[in-house]
Amino acid sequence: MTDHRIAILGGDGIGPEVVAEGCKVLDHLEQLENFTTERVEYDLGGRRYRETGEVLDDATLEELRGFDAIYLGAVGTPDVPPGVIERGLLLKLRFAFDQYVNHRPVRLYPGVSSPVAGLTPERCDFVVVRENTEGVYAGAGGRLYAGTAQEVATQESVNTRHGVERVLRFAFEQARSRRGHLTLVHKTNVLVHAGALWMETFEHLGDTEYDDVTRDYVHVDAACLYFVTQPERFDVVVTENLFGDIITDLGAAVQGGMGLAASGNLDPTRRAPSMFEPVHGSAPDIAGTGRADPVAAVMSLGQMLAFLGEDAAAARIDTAVGVLLGERGGSSGSAYSTAEVGDRLVELVAR
Amino acid sequence: MTDHRIAILGGDGIGPEVVAEGCKVLDHLEQLENFTTERVEYDLGGRRYRETGEVLDDATLEELRGFDAIYLGAVGTPDVPPGVIERGLLLKLRFAFDQYVNHRPVRLYPGVSSPVAGLTPERCDFVVVRENTEGVYAGAGGRLYAGTAQEVATQESVNTRHGVERVLRFAFEQARSRRGHLTLVHKTNVLVHAGALWMETFEHLGDTEYDDVTRDYVHVDAACLYFVTQPERFDVVVTENLFGDIITDLGAAVQGGMGLAASGNLDPTRRAPSMFEPVHGSAPDIAGTGRADPVAAVMSLGQMLAFLGEDAAAARIDTAVGVLLGERGGSSGSAYSTAEVGDRLVELVAR
Ligand SMILES: CC(C)[C@H](C(=O)O)[C@@H](O)C(=O)O
Ligand SMILES: CC(C)[C@H](C(=O)O)[C@@H](O)C(=O)O
Repeated sequence: MTDHRIAILGGDGIGPEVVAEGCKVLDHLEQLENFTTERVEYDLGGRRYRETGEVLDDATLEELRGFDAIYLGAVGTPDVPPGVIERGLLLKLRFAFDQYVNHRPVRLYPGVSSPVAGLTPERCDFVVVRENTEGVYAGAGGRLYAGTAQEVATQESVNTRHGVERVLRFAFEQARSRRGHLTLVHKTNVLVHAGALWMETFEHLGDTEYDDVTRDYVHVDAACLYFVTQPERFDVVVTENLFGDIITDLGAAVQGGMGLAASGNLDPTRRAPSMFEPVHGSAPDIAGTGRADPVAAVMSLGQMLAFLGEDAAAARIDTAVGVLLGERGGSSGSAYSTAEVGDRLVELVAR
Repeated sequence: MTDHRIAILGGDGIGPEVVAEGCKVLDHLEQLENFTTERVEYDLGGRRYRETGEVLDDATLEELRGFDAIYLGAVGTPDVPPGVIERGLLLKLRFAFDQYVNHRPVRLYPGVSSPVAGLTPERCDFVVVRENTEGVYAGAGGRLYAGTAQEVATQESVNTRHGVERVLRFAFEQARSRRGHLTLVHKTNVLVHAGALWMETFEHLGDTEYDDVTRDYVHVDAACLYFVTQPERFDVVVTENLFGDIITDLGAAVQGGMGLAASGNLDPTRRAPSMFEPVHGSAPDIAGTGRADPVAAVMSLGQMLAFLGEDAAAARIDTAVGVLLGERGGSSGSAYSTAEVGDRLVELVAR
C-alpha cells in the first residue's frame, strides 16, 4: 500500500520538463522521509487534443477523482484556439473537483531580485487566497446578434453565499495561522451586488468567529498599486476569482517572476483531489531548450506535500529552494539548465 | 463671448485644493495664449450629499451638459457609504455624457523615481484607452435571497459592438498618432463571449481600416506583469472598463504614483462635455493640510486644454510639469505645499 496516489499531468511545452524535475525531487524525499507515492502519468493537453480531438473525457475525469492529488505542469499550445485547453482541462478540473481555494503565496526569497526597487524579503511575504469556482469563471453569458453591428455580448459573474463563505473561512484560518491579518480585495463601489455579498459575509464571519483576526478592505485597483508600493500591508489577501487571477500575476512579478510562483487548487474538504501547479504557462518558445526554470514546479510540489500531511518533506523543499535562490544570487533560472536546477535541489533537500 | 465654458467640480477632500492650483495655472495660460474661459463652480460631492441628501439632480445634470468641459477634483467622503458618490456623480456623468473613452497616459518623467528598479523614461511612455461606458459599470446584476445562506449575487458585464467599436477606433487613431502599436488587453480565454466580441472587432478594424498599426494581444493578468517588467512593450493599450480601472492604477504606481496620474473622460463626438480629473481620490487623511500634490490635477488640465484645441497652452503645461518634476529630483509632492507647487508651475508655464 502506498501512502499517496498522485496523478501526474505534465501537459504541454515546458510542463512535462519542469514536472520531471519535481518528480526527481519527490523520489529523494520519499527515501529521506519514509513515505511512498504511486504516480500515474496522464497525457493531457494541447498536443493530445490535436491528436484525438478530446481534451478530457468523462472516464478520465472519474479516474482522476480517485487520486489524492494532481501534480500539473502547464497546458496550452499555440496552435489550439485560446481557451479550449484552459477551459476544457484546467478549469474543468477546478470545477469538477470543487477546488474552491486557489492558494498562491507571494514571497520574496532572500537573494532574489525583485523588479520593485529596494524591496526586501521582510516586506514581501503574504498569501493570496483566490476563490476558484465562481465569478465569471462560471462561464455564464452569451452573444446576441454575434458578428453584427447590433451585437451584445455579456459575461456574468455568479457569486453564492455558500461559495463566498467557505473561501473566506479558509482565508480567516490562514490568517490565524500566520500574522493574523486578512485583507479583502474587491470593487464594492462598482460591483455593488457581488461586493455586498462579499463584504457582508466578510464582516459577519470576522465579527462572529474570527475576531482575533484584524480585517482590512482594499479596492482591487488600489491593491495593484499597493502590491508594488507597500506589499508589507498584506498578510493574507482574499478575493474573488478574476481579481485573484489578475493580482497573483502581479504578485508573481513582484516576488521575482513567474518562474517562482507556485499554486495549489485546493478542496479543503478532501472529498476530491487537490491540484498543484506552477502559475507559469507552457512557454512554447523555450520548450525543448532545457532552459525552463523548474523552481515554481518544485515549490508547487512542496505545497502538495504539505497538503498531504508530509510536513517534513515540505519543509525540506522550502529550505532547499531558499538556499538555491540565495546561491543563484539574483540571476534568473535561465542561467542554469532545467536538469541542473533539479539536481541541485535534489542535493539540497538531502541536507 | 468666451472661448470655453468650463464647469469646475472641486468635490471633496483634497479635490478643491488641487483644482484651485489648476485654475491658478489656467488664469496665467489665458493671458499667455490669448484665450478666455468662463468657469462656473459647482458644489457637488460627499459633503453636499450629507447636507442635502442629493448627489446630482437632473436639473444640475442638464446645466452641466451645456459646458464645453468639466474639470473635476475628487469625490468621496469617508462618512458616506462606498459607491454612493462614485456612482451617483462620477459614473453618472461618464454615462450621461457618453464619455466613452477614459484616456490615461502612463509616462515616467525624467527625474521621477519609479518603484520599478532601473526603469527609465524611454521604457515607460504609453497611453491606456479604457472603455468608459459599458462592462460591469453598466450596473446590471442583483441579489437573490440576500443575507441568507441561499444568497446568489450576480454582476453582469454588458458589451456592445457599438461600444467596443467606437473605443477601438479611438485607440487605433491614438496609435496612429504615436508609435503605431496597439495592444488589446482582455481575458479572452475565460471571458469567451465578451472576449470574442472585443477580439473580432479588433481584428476586423485592424485589417480593414488600420493595417498601418501593428497589433498585439495580452491577457489582463499578463499585462499586469508586463506593466512592471516590460512597460516598453506598450504604446497604446485598449481595454474594457474594469480591466482599465485596474491596470491604470498599476500604471500610476509604475510611473511614480497617484500624484502624477491624469485622466480624461472623453466624448470624442463632442456632443456632450468631456471631463478631466486626476486619477487619485479625495484623500481625506491629508485634506486641509496643504500637502496635496496638485501635479495630476494640472496634468489633467493640460489634457483638457489639448482636447479644447488649446494646443499651445497644453504644451506649456507639459513642459512645465516636466521641468518641475526634474527639479524635485525624485522626491514626491509632499515635500512641497500644494500652493508652492502651483506657484512654481505658474512661473514655469510663463517661460
Ligand atoms: C489559464 C487561465 C484559464 C488561468 C486562470 O485564469 O485562472 C491562469 O491564468 C491561472 O491563473 O491559473
Ligand atoms: C471611483 C471609481 C468608481 C472609479 C472607477 O472605478 O472608475 C475610479 O477608480 C477611477 O478609476 O476613476
